[in-house]
Amino acid sequence: MAYFPNVSKINYSGKQLKSDLSFNHYNPDEIVAGKSMRDHLRFSVAYWHTLTQDGSDPFGVGTTIRPWNHLKGMDLAKARVEAAFEFFEKLGNPFFCFHDRDIAPEGDTLRETNRNLDEIVSMIKEYMKTSNVKLLWNTANMFTNPRFVHGAASSCNADVFAYAAAQVKKGLEVGKELGAENYVFWGGREGYETLLNTDMKFEQDNIARFFHMAVDYAKEIGFDAQFLIEPKPKEPTKHQYDFDAATTIAFLKTYDLDKHFKLNLEANHATLAGHTFDHEIRVASTHGLLGSLDANQGDMLLGWDTDEFPTDLYATTLTMYEVLKNGGLGRGGLNFDAKPRRSSFMPEDLFYAHIAGMDSYALGLKVANRLIEDRVFDEFIEERYSSYQQGVGADIVSGKADFKSLENYIIDKEEIVNQSGRLEKLKNTLNHYIVQEAYQGTFA
Amino acid sequence: MAYFPNVSKINYSGKQLKSDLSFNHYNPDEIVAGKSMRDHLRFSVAYWHTLTQDGSDPFGVGTTIRPWNHLKGMDLAKARVEAAFEFFEKLGNPFFCFHDRDIAPEGDTLRETNRNLDEIVSMIKEYMKTSNVKLLWNTANMFTNPRFVHGAASSCNADVFAYAAAQVKKGLEVGKELGAENYVFWGGREGYETLLNTDMKFEQDNIARFFHMAVDYAKEIGFDAQFLIEPKPKEPTKHQYDFDAATTIAFLKTYDLDKHFKLNLEANHATLAGHTFDHEIRVASTHGLLGSLDANQGDMLLGWDTDEFPTDLYATTLTMYEVLKNGGLGRGGLNFDAKPRRSSFMPEDLFYAHIAGMDSYALGLKVANRLIEDRVFDEFIEERYSSYQQGVGADIVSGKADFKSLENYIIDKEEIVNQSGRLEKLKNTLNHYIVQEAYQGTFA
Amino acid sequence: MAYFPNVSKINYSGKQLKSDLSFNHYNPDEIVAGKSMRDHLRFSVAYWHTLTQDGSDPFGVGTTIRPWNHLKGMDLAKARVEAAFEFFEKLGNPFFCFHDRDIAPEGDTLRETNRNLDEIVSMIKEYMKTSNVKLLWNTANMFTNPRFVHGAASSCNADVFAYAAAQVKKGLEVGKELGAENYVFWGGREGYETLLNTDMKFEQDNIARFFHMAVDYAKEIGFDAQFLIEPKPKEPTKHQYDFDAATTIAFLKTYDLDKHFKLNLEANHATLAGHTFDHEIRVASTHGLLGSLDANQGDMLLGWDTDEFPTDLYATTLTMYEVLKNGGLGRGGLNFDAKPRRSSFMPEDLFYAHIAGMDSYALGLKVANRLIEDRVFDEFIEERYSSYQQGVGADIVSGKADFKSLENYIIDKEEIVNQSGRLEKLKNTLNHYIVQEAYQGTFA
Amino acid sequence: MAYFPNVSKINYSGKQLKSDLSFNHYNPDEIVAGKSMRDHLRFSVAYWHTLTQDGSDPFGVGTTIRPWNHLKGMDLAKARVEAAFEFFEKLGNPFFCFHDRDIAPEGDTLRETNRNLDEIVSMIKEYMKTSNVKLLWNTANMFTNPRFVHGAASSCNADVFAYAAAQVKKGLEVGKELGAENYVFWGGREGYETLLNTDMKFEQDNIARFFHMAVDYAKEIGFDAQFLIEPKPKEPTKHQYDFDAATTIAFLKTYDLDKHFKLNLEANHATLAGHTFDHEIRVASTHGLLGSLDANQGDMLLGWDTDEFPTDLYATTLTMYEVLKNGGLGRGGLNFDAKPRRSSFMPEDLFYAHIAGMDSYALGLKVANRLIEDRVFDEFIEERYSSYQQGVGADIVSGKADFKSLENYIIDKEEIVNQSGRLEKLKNTLNHYIVQEAYQGTFA
Repeated sequence: MAYFPNVSKINYSGKQLKSDLSFNHYNPDEIVAGKSMRDHLRFSVAYWHTLTQDGSDPFGVGTTIRPWNHLKGMDLAKARVEAAFEFFEKLGNPFFCFHDRDIAPEGDTLRETNRNLDEIVSMIKEYMKTSNVKLLWNTANMFTNPRFVHGAASSCNADVFAYAAAQVKKGLEVGKELGAENYVFWGGREGYETLLNTDMKFEQDNIARFFHMAVDYAKEIGFDAQFLIEPKPKEPTKHQYDFDAATTIAFLKTYDLDKHFKLNLEANHATLAGHTFDHEIRVASTHGLLGSLDANQGDMLLGWDTDEFPTDLYATTLTMYEVLKNGGLGRGGLNFDAKPRRSSFMPEDLFYAHIAGMDSYALGLKVANRLIEDRVFDEFIEERYSSYQQGVGADIVSGKADFKSLENYIIDKEEIVNQSGRLEKLKNTLNHYIVQEAYQGTFA
Repeated sequence: MAYFPNVSKINYSGKQLKSDLSFNHYNPDEIVAGKSMRDHLRFSVAYWHTLTQDGSDPFGVGTTIRPWNHLKGMDLAKARVEAAFEFFEKLGNPFFCFHDRDIAPEGDTLRETNRNLDEIVSMIKEYMKTSNVKLLWNTANMFTNPRFVHGAASSCNADVFAYAAAQVKKGLEVGKELGAENYVFWGGREGYETLLNTDMKFEQDNIARFFHMAVDYAKEIGFDAQFLIEPKPKEPTKHQYDFDAATTIAFLKTYDLDKHFKLNLEANHATLAGHTFDHEIRVASTHGLLGSLDANQGDMLLGWDTDEFPTDLYATTLTMYEVLKNGGLGRGGLNFDAKPRRSSFMPEDLFYAHIAGMDSYALGLKVANRLIEDRVFDEFIEERYSSYQQGVGADIVSGKADFKSLENYIIDKEEIVNQSGRLEKLKNTLNHYIVQEAYQGTFA
Repeated sequence: MAYFPNVSKINYSGKQLKSDLSFNHYNPDEIVAGKSMRDHLRFSVAYWHTLTQDGSDPFGVGTTIRPWNHLKGMDLAKARVEAAFEFFEKLGNPFFCFHDRDIAPEGDTLRETNRNLDEIVSMIKEYMKTSNVKLLWNTANMFTNPRFVHGAASSCNADVFAYAAAQVKKGLEVGKELGAENYVFWGGREGYETLLNTDMKFEQDNIARFFHMAVDYAKEIGFDAQFLIEPKPKEPTKHQYDFDAATTIAFLKTYDLDKHFKLNLEANHATLAGHTFDHEIRVASTHGLLGSLDANQGDMLLGWDTDEFPTDLYATTLTMYEVLKNGGLGRGGLNFDAKPRRSSFMPEDLFYAHIAGMDSYALGLKVANRLIEDRVFDEFIEERYSSYQQGVGADIVSGKADFKSLENYIIDKEEIVNQSGRLEKLKNTLNHYIVQEAYQGTFA
Repeated sequence: MAYFPNVSKINYSGKQLKSDLSFNHYNPDEIVAGKSMRDHLRFSVAYWHTLTQDGSDPFGVGTTIRPWNHLKGMDLAKARVEAAFEFFEKLGNPFFCFHDRDIAPEGDTLRETNRNLDEIVSMIKEYMKTSNVKLLWNTANMFTNPRFVHGAASSCNADVFAYAAAQVKKGLEVGKELGAENYVFWGGREGYETLLNTDMKFEQDNIARFFHMAVDYAKEIGFDAQFLIEPKPKEPTKHQYDFDAATTIAFLKTYDLDKHFKLNLEANHATLAGHTFDHEIRVASTHGLLGSLDANQGDMLLGWDTDEFPTDLYATTLTMYEVLKNGGLGRGGLNFDAKPRRSSFMPEDLFYAHIAGMDSYALGLKVANRLIEDRVFDEFIEERYSSYQQGVGADIVSGKADFKSLENYIIDKEEIVNQSGRLEKLKNTLNHYIVQEAYQGTFA
């Protein structure tokens, strides 16, 4: 293989801080809480960022230097498949993800487009036979082409709805063909620019109709992947319908879809919606709807989706804390929906960036596990809520209390004593665990 | 009456732009769309801002000059009632709102506190007999007192839950006594500072238990007011559970409370959550859950709740547009949850500020009504979605279509034609209606 | 002419609200404060948005339908020139602006690129002879090409600095050739992604060197245009050096450049920096550095540069208020650095959008002028600061007072009396002037 | 001493992670880069947060439990002094800071107020004789009292200017009396609510007059402290004049004050202005104007000043990196302008919070020092800008090049080669240094 000649297979190495192309924290075979890191983290490479994106931004054209830049059309598509599997082999990620249009170019009609897609899917299937990499999820790109200018399932144009339906139909077939664990719906254009020209209720009804059709068709063809909706509050449209986890849950419940869909949450989308990533995960988890994660990070001072590789150890630790508390990610995984900055345009930056993300999550996993094993926060929380274990608290929880009994209990009480929430101490403890775990896990 | 000696009753006057203390757009008896402006707008004065707040902010103590500033305790409370009804009489607002602690001071126990409350409630009831002003809603202040430091119904301390229950029990009784149209729940401290010390699921379960108790008790005493939850995303806590309309709807549906509660939406809370006010209203309205509105505005460059009086004619027009489309506000109203800036500390600023808010909303109502009568946006929207009236679009809506029929329809189609969304033209049209309506309504 | 066959020349028409393609407020020959609206507003069409941009965004390719979409290279460039002058003729704008790369494509070397440029510049010059449209400013695009990935004058690569120097050299020559009133510097990539790899001091020193070279060369060739720097806080880079007006002033003063440069301020850049547009203009104006304006608007709930056409009458009024107070825009103008939304992709949307912007600014001008003629705010401000007209206040201003004299004056004083700032009343007055002026100016 | 009976003197302890009241990273006597940590970090306790603030917020009254809560007036002021020195003794901070009104209550006139102040200053002076704690800086509170509602030096009321002048006069005398290293100016109310009622130019002229008077008076009395201005973009006013470092530098240069003032930068103020803390420090440092630091942190998802104790190891590392590169903080220090959350209301939370801050900064210092010693970023940067060391780059820097020579150099060049910025690799390296340093410094 020849696409990344300067990089050999990256192995877990432990102590080599100075070596750029090695892991310091990620060891796929290391056991944490009874399971290998590979099985905990289920890392996935995002085809659109790693193989397809070119470093362009709203003020500049592409910058990336890639060995396939001189190719076009199906030749380009095939070269990327070859490069992808070389990349996976060298990096050691167990999963990958793609949009239909990442892997194959469009033709003049959907029939032609599907023909292109079939050819590349066959090629990928062939490669997967001799690779350990599996398809975490696939999805349909229904936002790049101008036909989706007013949305896909929410378009004011019925032809666009029909096109989107046919496109997802094919997507489900492709997912089945490649054994995808999940199928993702990101409504990149499902939203509005202005309410002045928008029938929001009608658009959401149509999205729900679309989702029910998808559920029916997957059942019909026996595709049993987990269905996931990916919330995002804004960008590209001014307002996107799947604003955040709670908004999406309201939608699913309104349209009786909560039995069929879980959530694919993304860190940068969370922050654009005004939430921490762990908040969004907790919301999904408490509703039993945590599906999968897009592991990236945003810049907290910028108001758009920067899709940076995740390197913030606080975020990776708290994310893995929520994941462990959820009992893991099930069929979901940690997909690097992330790209090197436009100024990190060399092929090897793809490796540096993935290593940074994987090491950061690996350390996060180990710190989170230690926090849980030591019951650091659990113990504090148990004590904090202990008044609900007996007396009036127990009556409240069991349903025995009502407004009258509670008034009776409290009306002559002179003082209520609260305990400190100890936020600063807890944050300092978190710091200690992060640096302590790094020591024990890596430098021993 | 002697609290505002420099202000006589403010009447509708029409053309007197130069007179500070007159309305230019609000005429309570003017008929718009078959109903008086009074009945459309249902303006309410917020007791806490107009009678109670003192102009303090996190960096400074109170600045307001008020005729009751020298009083204390129950004397102060009584003076404020007198001043309130003089203010209502002069301003001509049909409604007012209060928190329990706005109108009467706390005692050493809840029993004492309730005694104070009863005395003031009797006084208010007496005043209401000879006034045209009604109680739009009352609510419980469960955020100022230190006991609520960790929340009220979501507190980790069962005694605090009990206290809150008893406090709301009393609030429901007071609401019944005064004939309140609505009862509001704003969870000022129901949220968290950090997930590190928080059992979010348990806290939300408890809030739901609390709400069910409130529903039961209202039923028991025959208090038939509309129950309203007021979303806010953050402040005072880092994250508030009732983040926005959609989040609150998810909560209500999760806990089977959506039949008992509607939403009280606030403009400044919407913008803190990243939404326009009309968006939040549209969301509530499409779910049949629009209850009432807190009419204020925020500063879009500031990240906290400034509770300014509403003067943006775009916002008042689009708000009233949504309200008219909803068929009005029902038992809800437009409550000025707004305060003059700290630097507008004179008593007459209270009048200037309310006049600004009422005139802005009155003009907004008239513009919105004209937009609806002329079918300006309706016509555009009908045309825009017309592809769903026949053929494949009609099949989608009726449920006849599925992924296979839609693929069959579209797979060989070469081109899909979309129409322009015309956002710029629509915005310009809105401008023309705002300035045209002002002309026709006021300066004819 | 054949590029916009469905649009005839747009004239001032006054009362035809229903006609889409007419002005309701802009009449170039109408005299306001002793000068025609044409001369006050100096509207400019931005070549890059109106002729060049295609509706693409980070999640989608172009959508715009343009009569020249089938062309390429120099043929495309020439067709755009023809279309541009037809557009100017029909719209009636007195000015236009361009980047070098908007009007002509790049070649393999700068020499070839300059040859392309020369050919198009000749063509434009020919068109300008029979047109009333003048060049408000030109500028160099030093952000689109990958060579500028690390900046232009601030690049870590000296070759890039040299390239940028040669490019601006040519830009100055082109500006001279076409009689540009101004020359603009927008540092689209002059900033950093991370301080970890950045020598900020060195980069700013280099930018200053670059500016001094530009000043020298303009002098050498006798190009007397006003030089303008355009601040922007972020996007495309994480941090841009010309963050806002004040930051740019600090830079100019640090490097002795404030005699040679003024500011080109943009509304959307102001809001991204956390300021109102009128604030930025006031800052520049008080330093005598107000040069020109990019008239657009952003979406206050979105964190990126949306470059919308300006329709907010508050903003246009307050902008023109600052401009009138500054004694006008001098050699600067109001350039529509604005684009129709991606979903407004039809050619006629270009007209709708410019009409919306021009009408909004025309009304803003008239309202602002009336506010100044009536001395609405001036009178209030004079009264507000009147304590500095005599006594201790006058001593402070004249320099007679010092800490000791002031202590002596105040140390035993028991009370200081302040006056209300009357913000709510002033905002309501502004509303009245906006709707009153619209009436008098348009519907009489 | 009896104010904090449950806390004994906190010593450096190293390995005791489980002990709440010990340092894990801060050892005042440990030598880093040739200087003790005490001398590098110059930690200061903020009197207003630690001794005075009560946990109130805009929606709630105070919550803090303090041994002096039962006292009032001068008794309270004296108890706080006693408690302060006990706190300093136990914590081991070398410095403290205060506003005049933190330490003593106001009287009816300034003369009375000064009398109160004198009494407490004498008491503090006495305590300082037997303590190792020094005064890092003092300042005047010119924002809490209603007289400052429209500003202090920028007030529209000349009496208020006079009052502020007399107050700062006294502040300078107090600073001299107590040997303050610096004197700080934070313009808490120097800004505006609306430009509609504001003469911005006049207000800034007045602030400059005020500062010149302060410089003169300090000289007159022989007070040689470093003068510092503290930027903040907004809050409490809508717009504060000292928006950020660059804005303040523009102001200082405009009014010839840059020789007399340096900057006191605060982390949370930086983020409210849209900057990282290290950016603000770099800006000040490159202008030779870095004075002192307020070490706290904000919540990146909240839009107000939360003044949290600094625990983010990325921020503390990058802050100390800039400080070391600046050659240290000179007469400045690291002042904890930070408060425990309202829900951390116990006396011991004050210790937990300071320990968290001190440990986080101590670790940050050590990591930053190692990064510098290993030339991790320096080496990368040197290589990155190396093209300016010879040839055309050297000509640019030396001033030999001009637009013509640069055009000549580049005009026929076919390709410019840039190098990757390697942002992801650098961020990963930073992670490794943080966790590695923690290991070597603490757990060895």
